[in-house]
Amino acid sequence: MTALVSSAEPAQPTLRARRLGLHTQHQPVVVMHKDCHVCHSEGLAARAQVLVTSGGREVQATLFQVDSDAMVKHDEVGLSETAWNLLGVSEGEELRVSHPPALESLASVRRRIYGHRLDAQALSDIVRDVTAGRYTDVHLAAFLTASAALPLDENETADLTGAMIAVGDRMRWDAPIVVDKHCVGGLPGNRTTPIVVAIVAANGLVMPKTSSRAITSPAGTADTMETLAPVDLDLATLRRVVEAEGGCIAWGGGVHLSPADDIFVRVERELDVDTEGQLIASVLSKKISAGSTHVVIDIPVGPTAKVRGEDAASHLAARITAVAARFGLAATCVQTDGSQPVGRGIGPALEAFDVLAVLRNAPDAPDDLRRRAAMLAGAALEIGGKAGKGAGLALALDTLSDGRAWKKFEAICAAQGGLRTPPRAAHLHPLVAPRAGRVVHINNRKLARLAKLAGAPDAKAAGVHMEVRLGDEIDRGQPLVHIHAETPGELAYALDYAAQAGDMIEVEP
Amino acid sequence: MTALVSSAEPAQPTLRARRLGLHTQHQPVVVMHKDCHVCHSEGLAARAQVLVTSGGREVQATLFQVDSDAMVKHDEVGLSETAWNLLGVSEGEELRVSHPPALESLASVRRRIYGHRLDAQALSDIVRDVTAGRYTDVHLAAFLTASAALPLDENETADLTGAMIAVGDRMRWDAPIVVDKHCVGGLPGNRTTPIVVAIVAANGLVMPKTSSRAITSPAGTADTMETLAPVDLDLATLRRVVEAEGGCIAWGGGVHLSPADDIFVRVERELDVDTEGQLIASVLSKKISAGSTHVVIDIPVGPTAKVRGEDAASHLAARITAVAARFGLAATCVQTDGSQPVGRGIGPALEAFDVLAVLRNAPDAPDDLRRRAAMLAGAALEIGGKAGKGAGLALALDTLSDGRAWKKFEAICAAQGGLRTPPRAAHLHPLVAPRAGRVVHINNRKLARLAKLAGAPDAKAAGVHMEVRLGDEIDRGQPLVHIHAETPGELAYALDYAAQAGDMIEVEP
Repeated sequence: MTALVSSAEPAQPTLRARRLGLHTQHQPVVVMHKDCHVCHSEGLAARAQVLVTSGGREVQATLFQVDSDAMVKHDEVGLSETAWNLLGVSEGEELRVSHPPALESLASVRRRIYGHRLDAQALSDIVRDVTAGRYTDVHLAAFLTASAALPLDENETADLTGAMIAVGDRMRWDAPIVVDKHCVGGLPGNRTTPIVVAIVAANGLVMPKTSSRAITSPAGTADTMETLAPVDLDLATLRRVVEAEGGCIAWGGGVHLSPADDIFVRVERELDVDTEGQLIASVLSKKISAGSTHVVIDIPVGPTAKVRGEDAASHLAARITAVAARFGLAATCVQTDGSQPVGRGIGPALEAFDVLAVLRNAPDAPDDLRRRAAMLAGAALEIGGKAGKGAGLALALDTLSDGRAWKKFEAICAAQGGLRTPPRAAHLHPLVAPRAGRVVHINNRKLARLAKLAGAPDAKAAGVHMEVRLGDEIDRGQPLVHIHAETPGELAYALDYAAQAGDMIEVEP
Repeated sequence: MTALVSSAEPAQPTLRARRLGLHTQHQPVVVMHKDCHVCHSEGLAARAQVLVTSGGREVQATLFQVDSDAMVKHDEVGLSETAWNLLGVSEGEELRVSHPPALESLASVRRRIYGHRLDAQALSDIVRDVTAGRYTDVHLAAFLTASAALPLDENETADLTGAMIAVGDRMRWDAPIVVDKHCVGGLPGNRTTPIVVAIVAANGLVMPKTSSRAITSPAGTADTMETLAPVDLDLATLRRVVEAEGGCIAWGGGVHLSPADDIFVRVERELDVDTEGQLIASVLSKKISAGSTHVVIDIPVGPTAKVRGEDAASHLAARITAVAARFGLAATCVQTDGSQPVGRGIGPALEAFDVLAVLRNAPDAPDDLRRRAAMLAGAALEIGGKAGKGAGLALALDTLSDGRAWKKFEAICAAQGGLRTPPRAAHLHPLVAPRAGRVVHINNRKLARLAKLAGAPDAKAAGVHMEVRLGDEIDRGQPLVHIHAETPGELAYALDYAAQAGDMIEVEP
């Protein structure tokens, strides 16, 4: 049909920016007056998505409206801090507000919901719109749910990985070999990364480690490392740290590697859903963006770990290796014991204390964490050519015992901005054994939930400190764990959960 | 494990309510100061979900924070209009703010995402939490997407229907027979309901019609009827109208019948996804809550209608009839022609003018709308025992032509609060034929999208007015439709779409 458009271009009068000092987390929010002429001419209603532009920059935001002049005047747009910073405007600067363009990539999301596989183009369009902040929570949840209900196949996983790499920065290193390490998670306290990086870098390999924050766990490596040193490094700083020390332990989101991942992760956390395809795309997009050539992947297996059986672990390992290979990344997957938490701490700061104890060869350092880290570092030293087949573990243990790993870790922390002392929680509370006997089962999931209710990972000092391990003989009334919380409220939520969750640690008479 | 809770009950200091006059649509929002002692003691961060309680009432809201005293002081809670009205507080009244309880029903949503069917208890827990406003957009979208990816089976559909009935009010009528009517939608302009109700009630049957607003279409019956009379009736008013006139045409959400439906509908609209299971639960929960004993269901079938083929229509009809039967509701499904829009108007007010023309026997009244409405009313008159088998259509047509239907419609509108004149749009624009020839295909979906971009259904006067029908012989440059918009901005969006959408109306030389 022929449309005679000329006559009807929309007027685009400008408005003035007003900073509200409103904190809305990631979500850009703008507040306009109900009687603002732009709301009238554009037909904008409360909670509509709007496109706000200033100079060359634009941001899509959720519109709220007010019916008095107290917050914003008729010709003003009140901006939340997120919107304010994304637009980079100054008080009173001119803005334009209009309807956002129609989101064509949602047609692909709908097709995916109804069971149609998506090709590389469709996934790249989706990831581009997601990264640009054009997807609402409803759209994001629909896409992630659809790719959980009908799991992403190998092609989709690879295409999603490629799309997530494409929208972010990409690092290049002079070294022929760049090693990396990752744990698929699900095992509380499994904080080997800082130790592995220290050992590997101390042996002269390049290991620019970027880690994520927790998705559904009480702590991610970035959350833990942040209690020991700054992890929110920009690309230049990260490069400087790695060139100086051979390694770093940084937050991936801070260097704009795979920025879409941080958006997906937020929604996955709210849903408490974490799927294989998203997991692989998340991990590999970050590794490949970071310029890694070789990666060691730790897959803990246990009845209450994320991966519950050897078959699932093998399937995951095969899928990871296959997708990684498409991008020229050599992945080595290692199945590890996932029957109980690693070390003693569960939660950012508590895990950091375990890491410090191992690196400093403290007499009471948790040996399980020490051996796991050495084993994974050994694998990295072998694929990196610093140790012969089977000789990696010994070299790694030596690097710990002779103090070179601790020296390297101190140097890396200094380069990242200075070694910090992790915070201690103000509120501690024991959970005690109801009877004497032997510890026969430990439920990782319930302990993780307990640590989260205590405030982890947002409350850095919060979490759970394990006082027993599988096989221990204990007395009635002996503490099984101590809950650490920063606020009485959070301690109470954790205790309420503990009271009704049933045995997290089973003691058999 | 044994928890020694006593020592750690959370302090629950009170705060004072402050009305912000902030319009956030359905979403309750509260604003608190970053340094508010409750935020500190409870560990509340921006965009957290919080439980706000006052007196006996409570509301779950999204928390935003400010870092200055301008909007709220340290001991104040700023409330959006939605939160303010749900709590029913007054300025300065005492409030408590805390973490909402853990949402156990989300475990069922996660199980459903991974392909496990849900039982009646699980669905009723979900619907209860949804109705209480405890689900975020992420949770709602995940549930709806999961029940689209793996379609609800008959048991789940029936259990969801039952759960949606249980959380709302339920109406009872003295009449042994209470008839109802519904169209599954997907056909623009198919606004038969007001006509059917008028005909059926004029013949002495009880027809307490409650309709929904548009889900993904440019207008729902409630949207259209609202331009002719008030439709937001409370239970008492609706009962009074029906007892006086035998029928009504009201908005279902206004009478708290199946309140969960209106929440699901909002998210389905944002996703532009509308599934069979949700459709059936939505329709039947409203019919059964309204106390209907018999219902006629219009299923338009056409290449660009919601239901594209006879097989799909038969499957839908069978599922509707089976689920309805479980609740003692007799459903009669009628397949109708869905090859082109019905009548001339697409959009609330434009469809209302068609309805008025038919009821008033205007010489230019759209005959297709007249015949459809009479056919459906005839079916209702037959199942209601007012006409013998096959005699319903004739009786319905007589009721229209002798003016009894119009009289009844006037009386119903008067009882609902007064007959209104639908609004006219300020901005009209034609789309003209690019060539002479015959109209061979009309795309319902593109025309519906066009009407929505023009502002329908929120802009009541907006939409599309059809100037041609299938088979018409037309000249080059002759108007095919006129776009009606209330604002220049919306007209421009519609025209932009028309310019790039390709033929909505195909003309063959």
